Amino acid sequence: MRETLIVERIRRLAQESTVDKTIIRGIGDDCAILRPRPDEDLVFTSDFMLEGRHFTLDTHKPADIGHKALARSLSDLAAMGAEPVFCLVSLAIPAALAGAWVNGFYRGLLALAGKYKVTLAGGDLARFEQITVDVTCCGRVPRGKALLRSGAKPGDRIYVTGELGGSAQGFETRKGKCWLRHLRPDPRIAAGIALRRAGVAAAMDLSDGLSLDLARLCNESKTGAAITQALPLAAGASLNQALHGGEDYELLFTAPPRRKIPQRIGLLPVTAIGVMTDEHPGEILLDGSPLPLQGFDHFA
Amino acid sequence: MRETLIVERIRRLAQESTVDKTIIRGIGDDCAILRPRPDEDLVFTSDFMLEGRHFTLDTHKPADIGHKALARSLSDLAAMGAEPVFCLVSLAIPAALAGAWVNGFYRGLLALAGKYKVTLAGGDLARFEQITVDVTCCGRVPRGKALLRSGAKPGDRIYVTGELGGSAQGFETRKGKCWLRHLRPDPRIAAGIALRRAGVAAAMDLSDGLSLDLARLCNESKTGAAITQALPLAAGASLNQALHGGEDYELLFTAPPRRKIPQRIGLLPVTAIGVMTDEHPGEILLDGSPLPLQGFDHFA
Repeated sequence: MRETLIVERIRRLAQESTVDKTIIRGIGDDCAILRPRPDEDLVFTSDFMLEGRHFTLDTHKPADIGHKALARSLSDLAAMGAEPVFCLVSLAIPAALAGAWVNGFYRGLLALAGKYKVTLAGGDLARFEQITVDVTCCGRVPRGKALLRSGAKPGDRIYVTGELGGSAQGFETRKGKCWLRHLRPDPRIAAGIALRRAGVAAAMDLSDGLSLDLARLCNESKTGAAITQALPLAAGASLNQALHGGEDYELLFTAPPRRKIPQRIGLLPVTAIGVMTDEHPGEILLDGSPLPLQGFDHFA
Repeated sequence: MRETLIVERIRRLAQESTVDKTIIRGIGDDCAILRPRPDEDLVFTSDFMLEGRHFTLDTHKPADIGHKALARSLSDLAAMGAEPVFCLVSLAIPAALAGAWVNGFYRGLLALAGKYKVTLAGGDLARFEQITVDVTCCGRVPRGKALLRSGAKPGDRIYVTGELGGSAQGFETRKGKCWLRHLRPDPRIAAGIALRRAGVAAAMDLSDGLSLDLARLCNESKTGAAITQALPLAAGASLNQALHGGEDYELLFTAPPRRKIPQRIGLLPVTAIGVMTDEHPGEILLDGSPLPLQGFDHFA
């Protein structure tokens, strides 16, 4: 199985999938080419998906890994209120996986890419002992309209989409809806676009746990935060999992108190959970007491 | 050493380095934001740099690895005739390397970024057993002017910049100028821009060896090729190394016979080596005989 043949197979798969008209050259040259539209900003993010760190071959099918590798990156576009445009996929694998495994991986990735109209425009392919995926995504937003972490002000109400703690609960039990949720997160692209249009103040996605991610939002906005209302727990999840469990890939956002925020976006519930404060930047209170930051940290 | 602290350190280093005014948001949010200029196309490429595949800790200092990880990606921008804009760096490392090694890596990477005015705009950071780097680069070209692999026609003259085989020779001997060349390739950004302005027909960079890369250019252009003139050998390199050795990161390009091509671009020599043919697409002749394709293939 020569590299050229594998790349040719990926190129054919990519051509069968949705192609954005602004991607004027995809796989097959030294670079992909994008022709930007007037009056748009482009947003970019890269996310690893690493064997033994983010998944194992025992528990994750190749299509699950492809799905989640793209979902992690798309979730960052959702956090900015962006519409997805294209992705670059860098994949390193042991030689033994160059056949059926690679097909399954790209099937999973391209199924999600099709759902959100993301063009697979390029990447890299290499041989490596452990499976290593790095997905770069590009999205577009109307000029100046990207949702930032730094937009929150004291007094803003804090909201989350969906339910929390489900991914951590699924990771623990490896069964049921929560496990499916852990394996196949659905990036909140439509919600991100709706919230941008609704004029929210700041947003980010929940990838490392509410406590740690909310502290990051606070640090960028130079505010504190108080969680004063019940969190929307996923069925079976504990408060601890909702506070500190990673990989929910829901959106966390703030809006001024008088801004009208819908209670649902499509079928996705939106829940008010607290208020931004003028306490020490990055300090989070839960029912009045300081909340320890125990989310996921690769180097803690 | 917490992840947040490492990221903060990288963010400070990035802010000290050149910042492109069109990057309106860099490290610190869910995505980096680029405000495109009117009348430009944007080009994108991703390249791995993997421990044990592309380097070892015994032979490569952290700054060498940072330099080369970015150089590999910039070389793809050079091949398109693009001006570099920004990079995203995804870095996974063992915990023990989170201190001095990371500093050295980014020092090497940012020194090269400064030379070519590339903004470090984001990426990812993770813990992993083996060092894994994936660098995504974005560049700009005037609309419709990117140099493609598919632009060559039978009768076009074939040229290369610089000297060939030096990197392979350096990899074998681990000493002298050739070894430095292998460790610290200089992406041909200025040459790529000059060749785009000179109106060359097709271009690519030489990363996997002349024989394999020329066959790829031929395949995309649906032509054959004949190498009819002496190759510019690096001092100490063999013809075999010049034909099949990887990682020279010179530019390979074609131009119609009447197009005036300079013999030097700055200090960099340009050498005519042959002619595109209407033989079987992808078939390369050397002095009239078919040339086996023996360049670097991860899965051969």
